Amino acid sequence: MADGDIVLGANQYGKAECRLVRIDRDTPVHRITDLTVTAQLRGDFTACHTDGDNSQVVATDTQKNTLYAFAREHGIATPETFLMTFGSHFVEEFTWVTGGRWEAQAHAWDRIVTGDGEHDHSFVRRGDEVRTTVVQKDGDATWVVSGLSGCTVLKSTGSEFSGFPRDRYTTLAETDDRIMATSVTAWWRYAPETQAELEELDFDRLYDAVRAVLLATFAEVHSLALQQTLFAMGRRVLEDHPEIAEIRLSCPNKHHFLVDLAPFGLDNPGEVFFAADRPYGLIQATITREGQPEVPQAWATVPAFA
Amino acid sequence: MADGDIVLGANQYGKAECRLVRIDRDTPVHRITDLTVTAQLRGDFTACHTDGDNSQVVATDTQKNTLYAFAREHGIATPETFLMTFGSHFVEEFTWVTGGRWEAQAHAWDRIVTGDGEHDHSFVRRGDEVRTTVVQKDGDATWVVSGLSGCTVLKSTGSEFSGFPRDRYTTLAETDDRIMATSVTAWWRYAPETQAELEELDFDRLYDAVRAVLLATFAEVHSLALQQTLFAMGRRVLEDHPEIAEIRLSCPNKHHFLVDLAPFGLDNPGEVFFAADRPYGLIQATITREGQPEVPQAWATVPAFA
Amino acid sequence: MADGDIVLGANQYGKAECRLVRIDRDTPVHRITDLTVTAQLRGDFTACHTDGDNSQVVATDTQKNTLYAFAREHGIATPETFLMTFGSHFVEEFTWVTGGRWEAQAHAWDRIVTGDGEHDHSFVRRGDEVRTTVVQKDGDATWVVSGLSGCTVLKSTGSEFSGFPRDRYTTLAETDDRIMATSVTAWWRYAPETQAELEELDFDRLYDAVRAVLLATFAEVHSLALQQTLFAMGRRVLEDHPEIAEIRLSCPNKHHFLVDLAPFGLDNPGEVFFAADRPYGLIQATITREGQPEVPQAWATVPAFA
Amino acid sequence: MADGDIVLGANQYGKAECRLVRIDRDTPVHRITDLTVTAQLRGDFTACHTDGDNSQVVATDTQKNTLYAFAREHGIATPETFLMTFGSHFVEEFTWVTGGRWEAQAHAWDRIVTGDGEHDHSFVRRGDEVRTTVVQKDGDATWVVSGLSGCTVLKSTGSEFSGFPRDRYTTLAETDDRIMATSVTAWWRYAPETQAELEELDFDRLYDAVRAVLLATFAEVHSLALQQTLFAMGRRVLEDHPEIAEIRLSCPNKHHFLVDLAPFGLDNPGEVFFAADRPYGLIQATITREGQPEVPQAWATVPAFA
Repeated sequence: MADGDIVLGANQYGKAECRLVRIDRDTPVHRITDLTVTAQLRGDFTACHTDGDNSQVVATDTQKNTLYAFAREHGIATPETFLMTFGSHFVEEFTWVTGGRWEAQAHAWDRIVTGDGEHDHSFVRRGDEVRTTVVQKDGDATWVVSGLSGCTVLKSTGSEFSGFPRDRYTTLAETDDRIMATSVTAWWRYAPETQAELEELDFDRLYDAVRAVLLATFAEVHSLALQQTLFAMGRRVLEDHPEIAEIRLSCPNKHHFLVDLAPFGLDNPGEVFFAADRPYGLIQATITREGQPEVPQAWATVPAFA
Repeated sequence: MADGDIVLGANQYGKAECRLVRIDRDTPVHRITDLTVTAQLRGDFTACHTDGDNSQVVATDTQKNTLYAFAREHGIATPETFLMTFGSHFVEEFTWVTGGRWEAQAHAWDRIVTGDGEHDHSFVRRGDEVRTTVVQKDGDATWVVSGLSGCTVLKSTGSEFSGFPRDRYTTLAETDDRIMATSVTAWWRYAPETQAELEELDFDRLYDAVRAVLLATFAEVHSLALQQTLFAMGRRVLEDHPEIAEIRLSCPNKHHFLVDLAPFGLDNPGEVFFAADRPYGLIQATITREGQPEVPQAWATVPAFA
Repeated sequence: MADGDIVLGANQYGKAECRLVRIDRDTPVHRITDLTVTAQLRGDFTACHTDGDNSQVVATDTQKNTLYAFAREHGIATPETFLMTFGSHFVEEFTWVTGGRWEAQAHAWDRIVTGDGEHDHSFVRRGDEVRTTVVQKDGDATWVVSGLSGCTVLKSTGSEFSGFPRDRYTTLAETDDRIMATSVTAWWRYAPETQAELEELDFDRLYDAVRAVLLATFAEVHSLALQQTLFAMGRRVLEDHPEIAEIRLSCPNKHHFLVDLAPFGLDNPGEVFFAADRPYGLIQATITREGQPEVPQAWATVPAFA
Repeated sequence: MADGDIVLGANQYGKAECRLVRIDRDTPVHRITDLTVTAQLRGDFTACHTDGDNSQVVATDTQKNTLYAFAREHGIATPETFLMTFGSHFVEEFTWVTGGRWEAQAHAWDRIVTGDGEHDHSFVRRGDEVRTTVVQKDGDATWVVSGLSGCTVLKSTGSEFSGFPRDRYTTLAETDDRIMATSVTAWWRYAPETQAELEELDFDRLYDAVRAVLLATFAEVHSLALQQTLFAMGRRVLEDHPEIAEIRLSCPNKHHFLVDLAPFGLDNPGEVFFAADRPYGLIQATITREGQPEVPQAWATVPAFA
């Protein structure tokens, strides 16, 4: 079965997890941007792989240097626009670089509140939830897939699960009232496929709006299944935002088991739960628009489904 | 050097990291308490160690069951009062149990905000910061050491470091303007040493007040050294709260290095930083009241200093 | 840009990270298998997403139960064969299940050695390196992609990096002797695409052989670039194993920086290094056979490239 | 209750988690030492805390520089001797430094084996088990507490648990055959209290011997309780090694629950287990020599008990 020479297939390389903090200090009221950036170039790197010829290998150290220099020269309006500017540099500067993948995780900070109100230059980290974006380029095309991860939500009622098929291996009882909890990972693809059109979008406003509607929908839908909640969350995002072509959601079902207190002579009317670590349900779905072409290049390296 | 029989020294055992979620649902506006509890008993367990005689070993499984039953029977007013009630049970119930250690990490949730305001029963996890408490009992004495961890703060100016000694191995430049960032771990010991007196304290209010003053002091002190900031933070806590006998702070100096952009023909006026992971400075200090006796039993197993 | 109804796209669900330990105890010399299994079903689950109709939702709890029952009924000869047997059950049992994805991480244990040699039933965990496999089914096709992750290797000489292009942002010096270290994540796809043919393979032997050749090649190749080492590693795997169609390698360049000791009047002839955490280079490549068709279905949810 | 001025209590500071790799390359057969070192100074640092006066603050950056310089100048015979040499420097050089704490985690590497046998300069990381040591100095006294952590062991039979007391909250069944698994954290204190005497010890040989006897005892003892196994492990270490004054063991009981397969018409004769994450039992004990004085200074900041 093994005819054919052995050759290099798809490949990419770059500098991963560059920790970049930028302070905008034009006024005494500072603004902080805190990113973890991973850069990956694609193009003709065959000679390096086959012969150790580095003449076309833009050093990962150079990619990192460029990142910090661009943060100074261009500022960081939004992660999405910054990565597009950053990525364009390599495609334009090096003829053999045909595209790449640039990812940022944005870590949020709130201002510390003192007796005098919000402080000018002191901040407290908001948590481990991160805003994410992956910008990819291939020739003239540019795709932006943005999202969030680590957003953990829970509803203490308003969730059922019943009517599922029962076979030899089924022991789960039906329930009409359970805790539903998940840690939302969402990725949505912006519809435009050119940098010029993408740069027209207001990425910060869109991020805030999408996050708000994801949370509100989770809260408001009376849930018959986590799948149903996911689909409702994604649908509302697409309904509200024509700029978004499709959305993928990956949500662990973080089980909270009602503790059986009967052996101790106690009832447990939905009050005391054991929050389990593993295993957990894992629900993953794409919500998209009918008839729209698939864009596998935009998703290939986005860890939306595991 | 090895005379003397080999004997059992200090020991303790119990169930660690019990994940306990309690929903108070007396009204449609639910309240959530989310704790990770570790229970440890101390007393006469020698026969188990030397002979495998379990007749005095309250099973760790029983400790866990008791935890969930107590959450139902007694509710969880505060982590501190709940652990005191929980711990007392073992000391009172089993004659050979002379004390123990009960720890809780409390995970905070905010209400999800929808178009209708704060939701009744839907929550979003606040982050990875946790409120902690260690209750210890030994005979009639009870100690409560509470704290917080994972509270990451940063100030983008208002921090200097200079005037330190220079020797053969010193290369660090002095600076009059740097980013100062840390992740605060704080532990404070409440002064009373009996359960009755301790139960008089308003632990939730105290926690909120201490956290607020720690953050505000971090923000407001113009810092000449992280040590100075720490001491100021601890001093203000003690000044404000006579109920608190002493406080320990452990603060990594999370270095943010100004990136040298000169090789690229750029200046960098305090704008672009590399946030380093390791190594990091680590500053640990106790702030206490003069003349007050030390209470090593309250601190022995609190991971305040590493 | 947003014409078209909003519809469900690709989706899957199941139980993730089931911790399964099986002891084969037919003889006093026990054998241990330690797996973390994630099961994911694909098929027609639209009604659940759109209407909360669970009549076709095989509960994730049922999937978990089936896993443990199958471990008893069928034993675990290899992770690959076990997952194929396990996955087939769902495709055969439920008409609307058209395929799925089943992943296992295998954790290795060594026997404890005592004065009497290897112990019959006592084991010590080998480390955090894991053997991985993802089995996917779609209709009649079955794909098996196996691999390893967390295999950290280092060579203290025999590695160079020079000849790379220099631009405005390049500061990296060329080197003819550096430490090269990486943590190998490898995924290789077995060529057969039917379960019957795949079951003929000796997966344990193949795993051991691939791992050995990856390590030996890393050691033996004088490296001009990490890309060159990767390609050589993958090529030798394909040369040795016609059963393997292609291999993907993802290797962080775990930088070890030579410490500049000149300020202290000391030289540093390749002896003292600082091992950095982040950022790190990240090199990812596919090594394949010329002319062979691509099989994106086998790779879509394998986290080979990030 | 709050009389007394607010003052600085116990404190220490330094550079934490310095990643230090040293290659001994005197011959073509290289030797690798891989340490994560945390340095902490103690002494008179009051002025820094109260007034931001840094004139006695040996910068943590200087401590780090000294570490790397000492690795070059002195080599690293063993972690214990290296830390004693390193720590002595600060106590001798700076009059106001009265002591400190220096910790190392040593990460083990094996040689890669190729067709030509063990490779000269290529290594594979052994796993996540680490060898640890904490050296502390106070005036003329020096203490060395060494250990290991992350050593995960399991026995698939030869473990019982019964005869424990039953109360209202007890539901656990007795068992005469279970899996016993734990991740051993051990800390042992070497008896000498001066650097000169301590430097006579053969720390590498002692480490290997202690680790071997811990594992062998775990394997060989038929266990009636994890406490009994722990005590036997510690006792054998003290019996074999008069140089060791006492040992502390902290062992999670990593529960492996026999899966109830009866609902599926299957028995489960000790074959199929669910390995739980949390909660877990936690057993912690000191094994010591009768009549020997306690040395709290050697243990105060060793995280032996949590």
